[in-house]
Amino acid sequence: MNEIINNGNVAFMVIATVLVFLMTPGLAFFYGGLVPKRNTLTMMMYTFISIGVVTVMWTLGGFSLVFGDDISGFIGSPTQYFMLNNVVFDVNPKYGSTIPFLMFFMYQLMFAIITAPLMTGAIAGRISIKGWISVLVLWMLVIYFPVAHWIWGGGWLSELGFVDYAGGTVIHATAGFSALVGVLYFGKRFVIPKRNYGNMNMIILGAAILMFGWFGFNSGGALMSGQQAAVAFTNTGIAAGFATVVWVFLAYRRDKKYSFVELTTGAVAGLATITPCAGYVTPQSSVAIGIVAAMVCYFSLQYTRRKGWDDALGVWGVHGMGGVTGSILVGVLASSSINGIQGDWSQVWIQMLGVGVVVVYTVILMWVILKVCDKVIGIRVPQRVQQKSLDEEYLIEKEV
Amino acid sequence: MNEIINNGNVAFMVIATVLVFLMTPGLAFFYGGLVPKRNTLTMMMYTFISIGVVTVMWTLGGFSLVFGDDISGFIGSPTQYFMLNNVVFDVNPKYGSTIPFLMFFMYQLMFAIITAPLMTGAIAGRISIKGWISVLVLWMLVIYFPVAHWIWGGGWLSELGFVDYAGGTVIHATAGFSALVGVLYFGKRFVIPKRNYGNMNMIILGAAILMFGWFGFNSGGALMSGQQAAVAFTNTGIAAGFATVVWVFLAYRRDKKYSFVELTTGAVAGLATITPCAGYVTPQSSVAIGIVAAMVCYFSLQYTRRKGWDDALGVWGVHGMGGVTGSILVGVLASSSINGIQGDWSQVWIQMLGVGVVVVYTVILMWVILKVCDKVIGIRVPQRVQQKSLDEEYLIEKEV
Amino acid sequence: MNEIINNGNVAFMVIATVLVFLMTPGLAFFYGGLVPKRNTLTMMMYTFISIGVVTVMWTLGGFSLVFGDDISGFIGSPTQYFMLNNVVFDVNPKYGSTIPFLMFFMYQLMFAIITAPLMTGAIAGRISIKGWISVLVLWMLVIYFPVAHWIWGGGWLSELGFVDYAGGTVIHATAGFSALVGVLYFGKRFVIPKRNYGNMNMIILGAAILMFGWFGFNSGGALMSGQQAAVAFTNTGIAAGFATVVWVFLAYRRDKKYSFVELTTGAVAGLATITPCAGYVTPQSSVAIGIVAAMVCYFSLQYTRRKGWDDALGVWGVHGMGGVTGSILVGVLASSSINGIQGDWSQVWIQMLGVGVVVVYTVILMWVILKVCDKVIGIRVPQRVQQKSLDEEYLIEKEV
Repeated sequence: MNEIINNGNVAFMVIATVLVFLMTPGLAFFYGGLVPKRNTLTMMMYTFISIGVVTVMWTLGGFSLVFGDDISGFIGSPTQYFMLNNVVFDVNPKYGSTIPFLMFFMYQLMFAIITAPLMTGAIAGRISIKGWISVLVLWMLVIYFPVAHWIWGGGWLSELGFVDYAGGTVIHATAGFSALVGVLYFGKRFVIPKRNYGNMNMIILGAAILMFGWFGFNSGGALMSGQQAAVAFTNTGIAAGFATVVWVFLAYRRDKKYSFVELTTGAVAGLATITPCAGYVTPQSSVAIGIVAAMVCYFSLQYTRRKGWDDALGVWGVHGMGGVTGSILVGVLASSSINGIQGDWSQVWIQMLGVGVVVVYTVILMWVILKVCDKVIGIRVPQRVQQKSLDEEYLIEKEV
Repeated sequence: MNEIINNGNVAFMVIATVLVFLMTPGLAFFYGGLVPKRNTLTMMMYTFISIGVVTVMWTLGGFSLVFGDDISGFIGSPTQYFMLNNVVFDVNPKYGSTIPFLMFFMYQLMFAIITAPLMTGAIAGRISIKGWISVLVLWMLVIYFPVAHWIWGGGWLSELGFVDYAGGTVIHATAGFSALVGVLYFGKRFVIPKRNYGNMNMIILGAAILMFGWFGFNSGGALMSGQQAAVAFTNTGIAAGFATVVWVFLAYRRDKKYSFVELTTGAVAGLATITPCAGYVTPQSSVAIGIVAAMVCYFSLQYTRRKGWDDALGVWGVHGMGGVTGSILVGVLASSSINGIQGDWSQVWIQMLGVGVVVVYTVILMWVILKVCDKVIGIRVPQRVQQKSLDEEYLIEKEV
Repeated sequence: MNEIINNGNVAFMVIATVLVFLMTPGLAFFYGGLVPKRNTLTMMMYTFISIGVVTVMWTLGGFSLVFGDDISGFIGSPTQYFMLNNVVFDVNPKYGSTIPFLMFFMYQLMFAIITAPLMTGAIAGRISIKGWISVLVLWMLVIYFPVAHWIWGGGWLSELGFVDYAGGTVIHATAGFSALVGVLYFGKRFVIPKRNYGNMNMIILGAAILMFGWFGFNSGGALMSGQQAAVAFTNTGIAAGFATVVWVFLAYRRDKKYSFVELTTGAVAGLATITPCAGYVTPQSSVAIGIVAAMVCYFSLQYTRRKGWDDALGVWGVHGMGGVTGSILVGVLASSSINGIQGDWSQVWIQMLGVGVVVVYTVILMWVILKVCDKVIGIRVPQRVQQKSLDEEYLIEKEV
């Protein structure tokens, strides 16, 4: 037994990792329930297929591209960790000084699995399964692996001092702005359901699993148990709670009725926004972040609707804007007492620059990916299928 | 890094806390499935809204009222921990000598979130959402915070030697007897469904999540990993198992058919009853507690029916009577080998006194709360709405 | 506090144990969704009843028969751990040198609970609930307790050097081949639904929970946190991912459509096959195991269909063949760097012998159990009930 490895920390990373794993099915239920019944299974397939495809990609070189030795600040060495080569059972002190490097591999795998599917909520009903698989593979290669390397793998943004605790930029901003590009690329659906959700119970179940898993998602960023993990854990719960209350209030004021979709959207907005901040700010700040998150994301969704963008499940407003907001707020609110980073104007500037570059990079590359996939294999769902049922077209089973 | 903090213990509290968190959605599914489809979402909203509302209350002073410095044995200082003031990242040796005080804040938050919603199962179909929110806020302030302080926060009952491991009195007895008051206050529903459950799958899913989470609920009471946590964990599983078997047998003997609702009710009865005992008794005793739990709660439900009380989901019989039974049994069966408390007549007497006072206090205050809320804002669901659908009246979405 | 007990390891075993617990409801949802709606609840009852029945059996002597002092290599002392007698809060160094023996009792209880229900997927629609309970009790007594003793409790197979990390033989091979016997014993259903699943959402939810829990199922076999647990954890995820991708590819090539049932079956095949290997092989080997698992189990299911065996949910092909395959592959691929066992011809031979004997023993005894139960109390579902609904016949509630 290696003396450096702390069994409590390994236990903690196991929890964090399984919790993030479960978020992927949770996302599938959340999105699957939000779309009309005739498209539910296809919607969920977008997410589930990522478990298999990204596991394979991650093992064959994805992990290496992110965390391998830095090549010019832009990407990691593709061969260093190919097929878990050199992913030792011992510690890699750069990535968790008390856990086997393998646990880091797995924890990060779960992040990689869930990121791309986040955007499918925006383009629901418009992309074929084969089309999605091709976009997924390219998106991971061209956007996720590089951006994750820049920020978490020792690339140029981390060199610059940019911080992102659990993926406000790496995950939510990239997926959220890719979602927006997708919405603009595909255009409106032929049939737009209006508050006609396929399965309320699944929405609620999915949201509950997302909240449950998010505690691991954020606190796992500490890569060890202890005080910092406890702070990130607490911030997650507090931001979600305050965001939920503010959002429910705003929506009730508008609609004069309660809404489960609004409640869960509010919680997710708070969670996405606290993500980059979780291990850097005090719990008092997370109260403020929760409140701001609800307001920013709520009005972003209003804006989406006014613009007539058919972002089916509000991915840009919640994940894109939440991720960006949190990524900037951490520059303001970070407290050196928590994790050594103190918010100030220079940090804010670095954060704005970092998230800005990532957004621009993502938007451009996502457009290219969609163009290429569309040309080469065709990714759009034909009008006839949109009007009838994606599930009937692409899947053997259908929901009964 | 603080030397006192044990990372294994923090990891353990993270597990326990997320497990208790998940019980709240689990409860929502359990209750949501048990009511007719037309009221499912409203039923679940009662529970989900508590996540947001109680998080805000807890942060703004609820935690302080429970665990702040004792004021005359009755309540904690409201300002000491206001906005997590003084809720340090370090240890508070009174509440977990090896974990950040923040983790204790979060673990207890999850208890606070789930308690009040337990009672909504009794008054299903009769209280408006706005009415419930007002009752929820007052109930937490006037019943939960004081009672939790008396028993867990250093108040007069804890001074007296009253013990309650994970909330047999603080949680189940308060919620269960409030449920009974609610049933008597509201009277019968205009439409009483007879074994006409809205969604069997959700009932079963909810019950499964409750069982899953209850392992954390009970073993987390140790505030650290180790032997005592292992005992509480084991007792939880054993009591649930024996209670389930006895209950299924009793129900089968009566009905000559199997029933999932009976099976899950039996499990919950065992779990509610072992809750106050979990960290004080031997596993052998938990066999007895499971068996007694099933019999007491089963016949309590029979009694409810004979009396014609419309306790829709049997909350009083299961949680109220289970909580009281366990709170007394711990006085008999506690073994000093486990946690320093030895069952004897004097302990039984203290337990009976404690749970008795809490029940009387709860019953009186709950009646006052309902009266006040009803007068001030009106909390009843009109006959027309009861007959049609609560979901249609209060929510934008409806179950499809 | 006992100095030997490591709180991080206890925390880890708590996670592992609750994860395995949750797999039982997960299995119920998976199977419940796969059968026609009219039989869903009965299907789930088979599994849920095991939670209660096996907990009682385990406490009253089951655990003792498996882990009690060895009697002639065949069975453990029935009295040694009767009613948790001698299941001390301290360590039993043979079963986890740093955790209370109680945690081992609970972890193994969860394995015992889930094993028998695995086979109900094969004989769906043909066995009455009363019949199943009688088979369950006898099966545990005559097959599970002895076989688990042989391999994990110090019996003759463990003496021989046979290894089975988390139950490829003890769990999947015994249940999978019992399933096959059941299929042949009962013969075909009177009504065979063709890809007419009762509830797709439940299938997917159940599969997600199974995957989630399997991380604990396999890594818990280390009986402590740390490097070996991390390896088992990683192998679990990798094998599942590769098996899923290969299976989806094979099924797509055949059907020209995607299928959620195929995707989830592929994942389960990978998981069942990696189970005996998880803590013995390198992550590189788990890539190979995942790929082989998908191919072996996929073609086993094809074979089942060609033979006209009515194995309703493919239990033999996935669990039986997956368990056998993994049990043999561990003999080839085990790496002494992980857990002291090096794969070689002699180990392969031991593995083949061990799994072979267990399969033959299981097949014979299962046939006897079915015969005896059928004679004594009758276990078959009459044609009339098969054609109408098992739920209506056996349960009070029905799915609405």
